[in-house]
Amino acid sequence: MASVVGDEVSNKQVIFRDYVTGFPKESDMYLRTSTIKLKVPEGSKAVLVKNLYLSCDPLMQFFMRKVQGPDPLMQLVTRKVQSNDAYDYYTPGSPVFGYGVSKVLDSGNPEFKAGDLVWGMTGWEDYSLITKSDDLIKIQHTHDDDVPLSYYTGILGMPGMTAYAGIYEVGAPKKGEYVFVSAASGAVGQLIGQFAKLTGCYVVGSAGSKEKVYIYIYIWYSMVDLLKNKLGFDEAFNYKEEHDLNTALKRYFPHGIDVYFEHVGGKMLDAVLLNMRHNGRIAACGMISQYNLEEPEGIKNLMQIGFKWIHMKGYTHRNYYHLYPKFLELVLPLIREKKIVYVEDIVEGLESGPAALVGLFTGRNFGKQVVAVARE
Amino acid sequence: MASVVGDEVSNKQVIFRDYVTGFPKESDMYLRTSTIKLKVPEGSKAVLVKNLYLSCDPLMQFFMRKVQGPDPLMQLVTRKVQSNDAYDYYTPGSPVFGYGVSKVLDSGNPEFKAGDLVWGMTGWEDYSLITKSDDLIKIQHTHDDDVPLSYYTGILGMPGMTAYAGIYEVGAPKKGEYVFVSAASGAVGQLIGQFAKLTGCYVVGSAGSKEKVYIYIYIWYSMVDLLKNKLGFDEAFNYKEEHDLNTALKRYFPHGIDVYFEHVGGKMLDAVLLNMRHNGRIAACGMISQYNLEEPEGIKNLMQIGFKWIHMKGYTHRNYYHLYPKFLELVLPLIREKKIVYVEDIVEGLESGPAALVGLFTGRNFGKQVVAVARE
Repeated sequence: MASVVGDEVSNKQVIFRDYVTGFPKESDMYLRTSTIKLKVPEGSKAVLVKNLYLSCDPLMQFFMRKVQGPDPLMQLVTRKVQSNDAYDYYTPGSPVFGYGVSKVLDSGNPEFKAGDLVWGMTGWEDYSLITKSDDLIKIQHTHDDDVPLSYYTGILGMPGMTAYAGIYEVGAPKKGEYVFVSAASGAVGQLIGQFAKLTGCYVVGSAGSKEKVYIYIYIWYSMVDLLKNKLGFDEAFNYKEEHDLNTALKRYFPHGIDVYFEHVGGKMLDAVLLNMRHNGRIAACGMISQYNLEEPEGIKNLMQIGFKWIHMKGYTHRNYYHLYPKFLELVLPLIREKKIVYVEDIVEGLESGPAALVGLFTGRNFGKQVVAVARE
Repeated sequence: MASVVGDEVSNKQVIFRDYVTGFPKESDMYLRTSTIKLKVPEGSKAVLVKNLYLSCDPLMQFFMRKVQGPDPLMQLVTRKVQSNDAYDYYTPGSPVFGYGVSKVLDSGNPEFKAGDLVWGMTGWEDYSLITKSDDLIKIQHTHDDDVPLSYYTGILGMPGMTAYAGIYEVGAPKKGEYVFVSAASGAVGQLIGQFAKLTGCYVVGSAGSKEKVYIYIYIWYSMVDLLKNKLGFDEAFNYKEEHDLNTALKRYFPHGIDVYFEHVGGKMLDAVLLNMRHNGRIAACGMISQYNLEEPEGIKNLMQIGFKWIHMKGYTHRNYYHLYPKFLELVLPLIREKKIVYVEDIVEGLESGPAALVGLFTGRNFGKQVVAVARE
């Protein structure tokens, strides 16, 4: 580390250009280099960090929108997203922000000290001054730890908590039940499928990517191969290759679906509703296919909820942080014993960030999309 | 009673003419007079009853449809509706059937004896031979009972159990919460609203009828007056008079809705989703506005489920029969102490049945629609 605490150093940043409607494009962001003093201002409770890994999350698109007038959808989404005010929209001319893993360089918050590793909301830049430092979570990590630090943007961070809550607190599939996971190649989907397999369920995943993907061991896999042969799903299919999703689901679930993990919405949800079993559960933490449509697709088969006593529940990781220690206790050994496979798609450097983020919405990525800013 | 057990007597019947698409019409049924022997066949476990009150329920439209090919919606609805086989479709040329209150004239089932009063599935005719007699429920009723027998088609029967389950087992509104009930003038809606008021909630109901309605005490009420002044709802509105349901809901629920009791679906559900509060609950036992559309209306705001961690659950009374004794224990005193108001719309005679049943789907009735066949 060339810089010294207190120095003013150059700080590369990914800047948000202007409010977005529909899908974000690469040109909605640009690179800028400014300077930053590597010291927390006197009397502040802020934390000054060096950013290591940044997370690309579907959620971030909401921070790019401008709320105009009383649009209840956008008000609810962007107005702090949740009950605390850790989130806010992006400001044109300021850096993009999102989840990330960072190293503390200086701290005004007694909970943290220089050298600590943390995860939480940070800026898309080399160094960030985090004012809402109470939301940061300290990472227990030693230099010889075989669990990569980048995992705290994914399996050990927000998507991991989402998957854990989805499986154990919301959808709660039981051994032998039929489980369907959409966006199964995504950060949350790949974990949910594996947790469901560990529970003893029959698990089918769908994803949209046809491209071959490159992971760990320098082998190219097709998405379906990867879900089946690497992640242990019983079956997997590419929804873009199916003319009729209802027919596809009937093929994979001749007895119907007990638990559906909903990440896409739209036509897939409509087809799933027709194939749910009585007392089925739908755990909904996102509907990525719908977020950037001018008008969402109408769901026509919702009557099935009444007919089949279906339980549909929206959720977010944010309701379940009290379970974080219990979650780590479960997942860290699974990772170390290689009982769970976790796939990352890491791009190098802040300058690769905008394309990586935009790629989320076109189904380009396989696995958790991460931007490596620096490696420690 | 002119007839004697064992006699063959004339039996007026409402006959189902042929399978229906869309809304049923009066001409889909016709009157016929046949004969019936008032005795259970030797060795049969059936029960021979004289029908007293017949219930008109939205559910009955499903029994009028023909399942052709693999239509998953209709298969799921009409194939026994639920897990037992008490229901089946109507057969052209045979009587319509549904819930009713009857008096046992002869019984091959040791659980019942002549003179017993029962409620359950029976035919739309003067006398019925009920082969699935195990599904009948015996009514404890004395001649000087001040609770009308017809109530076992409604508040003390299937709609009552539905409302009870909806309030106490599914939606579970707490004191002080904001509750919205659609189809509030219907058999289930009027009870749900009152149960919610007894719980200490703020309750608003919507209904579709503008006609003035005539109840008990020879006074004409408007639907909204009745909900507010007679049933104790805090507010009520006629959805047909609102240009924009979202605006209407914002007027009645400036702080949003905690619990929605869903009976209509379609545009109302879409508007409600925009007005739900975080952790809100939607208890869905029916979507009557959608059942007879060629294609259901698409619900566009389902993303709110994920954004606001909404819990939506379909249910039916049939999951909760084990609670029937507990239910009676709660409701019978409420009726006797006049802490709950129950509104019936009773038409006289089997010949009035088809019009009464068809009226359910045009919002003509106010309160529980009953056909009185005979009074005992």
